[in-house]
Amino acid sequence: MPDPHMVSVDDLLARVTAIFVGCGLRPENAQAVARVIVAGERDNCKSHGIYRIEGCLRVLAAGKVSPDAVPALHDSGKAVIEVDAGGGFSNPAFDAAVDALATRARETGLAALVIRDCLHFSALWHDVEALAARGLASLSMCPSYAFVAPAGGTEPLLGTNPIAFGWPRPGPQPYVFDFATSVAARGEIELHRRAGQPIPEGWAIDGDGAPTTDPETALAGAMLTFGGHKGSAISTMIELMAGAMLGEFMSREALDFMGGGGLLPRHGALVLALDPGTFAARSGRDPIAEGEKLLGAIGAQGARLPSARRFAAREAALRDGIALSDAEMAQLARFEAQGLAAVAD
Amino acid sequence: MPDPHMVSVDDLLARVTAIFVGCGLRPENAQAVARVIVAGERDNCKSHGIYRIEGCLRVLAAGKVSPDAVPALHDSGKAVIEVDAGGGFSNPAFDAAVDALATRARETGLAALVIRDCLHFSALWHDVEALAARGLASLSMCPSYAFVAPAGGTEPLLGTNPIAFGWPRPGPQPYVFDFATSVAARGEIELHRRAGQPIPEGWAIDGDGAPTTDPETALAGAMLTFGGHKGSAISTMIELMAGAMLGEFMSREALDFMGGGGLLPRHGALVLALDPGTFAARSGRDPIAEGEKLLGAIGAQGARLPSARRFAAREAALRDGIALSDAEMAQLARFEAQGLAAVAD
Repeated sequence: MPDPHMVSVDDLLARVTAIFVGCGLRPENAQAVARVIVAGERDNCKSHGIYRIEGCLRVLAAGKVSPDAVPALHDSGKAVIEVDAGGGFSNPAFDAAVDALATRARETGLAALVIRDCLHFSALWHDVEALAARGLASLSMCPSYAFVAPAGGTEPLLGTNPIAFGWPRPGPQPYVFDFATSVAARGEIELHRRAGQPIPEGWAIDGDGAPTTDPETALAGAMLTFGGHKGSAISTMIELMAGAMLGEFMSREALDFMGGGGLLPRHGALVLALDPGTFAARSGRDPIAEGEKLLGAIGAQGARLPSARRFAAREAALRDGIALSDAEMAQLARFEAQGLAAVAD
Repeated sequence: MPDPHMVSVDDLLARVTAIFVGCGLRPENAQAVARVIVAGERDNCKSHGIYRIEGCLRVLAAGKVSPDAVPALHDSGKAVIEVDAGGGFSNPAFDAAVDALATRARETGLAALVIRDCLHFSALWHDVEALAARGLASLSMCPSYAFVAPAGGTEPLLGTNPIAFGWPRPGPQPYVFDFATSVAARGEIELHRRAGQPIPEGWAIDGDGAPTTDPETALAGAMLTFGGHKGSAISTMIELMAGAMLGEFMSREALDFMGGGGLLPRHGALVLALDPGTFAARSGRDPIAEGEKLLGAIGAQGARLPSARRFAAREAALRDGIALSDAEMAQLARFEAQGLAAVAD
């Protein structure tokens, strides 16, 4: 392993923002996208870090995302707030709406944010952490591309459909989980294919619905959900709630619309925000202190909370900077020098 | 197998209601409890059918449930409605609040129902089906007793924590799932113990956190969640949202309060109701028709939707009656004749 280059979080944020501005993104959009990418890198989520820049540039180069979309907030004053991303990335839309969502949740006890017509590439934990920082519990979910078969089925129909949950804790680190409802990421199967290695059983099926450990067959067949029929039911719920219910694309329509899975998917997203203070008020208990009893007891028996590794990486990155390899530094420099030309085929 | 006795749904409902009235339940409470028990029997969910009468009578005989509790609705006019079950069964409380919840969800787009201080024994699908019949999507969840270890842990801390989701469909049968977040039910482990058979791997761990297939060791150790760390995260979410957030018991406190798992647990419950019409309005799409595209495609590839078996059993029961065995008929007669004395130790 070559010596890493240590880059501060702020410096990396400035560089990534500049790359996107250089590629034509409206500055507010560039900042929002860069912020979530750098957060992924800072937390050592390599799959959602600067690796994602290329995918964003590709969809920009293909003209399939609006670089200068201005998120439009629609607030009827009810418990459902909407933000139209206008065919831009989801992150500026979320950023434009998060304060309104949090305010409404505190007023009404719970509120929902509908994000319409966005391109999505980022982990959902960024959204639920933003709400936890405002003292709110939240659930976030969205469809993706139809690569996953329902339990007992044979054909891809569901997305890898991520779901994330956030719960505020007294310190800076909330309780957060964020996972795909597929048993594995599509990228992991692709990595096995390139390495000529079989995939574990239970990851995928062939075109007849039979189990396969051959990555090529798996990619041509369908992936499977985590947890068998239970995971399949949750993935179906995500299609219904974050797709059909919003009148936005489900995973199959998203795949058809983009003409295959090579570019980022376009669809909607749903975020529910709940105010523990409102829910607990009549009980006389402090919901956050109650939550600590559970979360403390999980830790006390030696079990790791979800996101614990991320938070440890974050602490180190904020203290020591982010470690980037020679190749990563070279790629950043290439994006800076060439902009969209860096991803021209 | 002996010849079954065919009993109409209405006749069984009348008999079960009379049993509970005879045991001192307020008539409205008896009807609500009987309705959900007979619905389970009608749907051939034997584990949630008349088998449950005995557990209800036991907790009545122990004086640990209020037979004449009158559910108290608390409606601040916001998106969160509360109903205090007053130490009674959860079902009358839900019934007392479901119309207010549905009305509020249609007004605000989404609303929540908090059920406080209830005893819980019934499947959650009954609740989400009631909301689907009113045109609403819904999520329902509650803690239970601390029999399940978190992923990576060694000690029971989480409940078997069920979660249910309902989505309205054009016909009488909604999309519904309802499952425990434990990989198996505790009763299934007990059945293996009685039969002297090992349990499958992955169901439970011993007191040191090591996998076990011995049912005795499993019952003294801890059960596991479905889907590994993902299922564990969802179970933890249920503890937080339907326990800590409401200021009601989580599964460990429920177990401590009732002095062991022999009687029904006392805790709260959370139901979220969402109005697809409100969420989809700006899209111009019909969310129910969109949902049918997905659900139809699942069926078209030969995959069974959750609850399909239940709905088929329901159709048969409504047409032909419910088939009860000699033993079941005898038990009903015993409860009718003896009331609470039938469960005296």
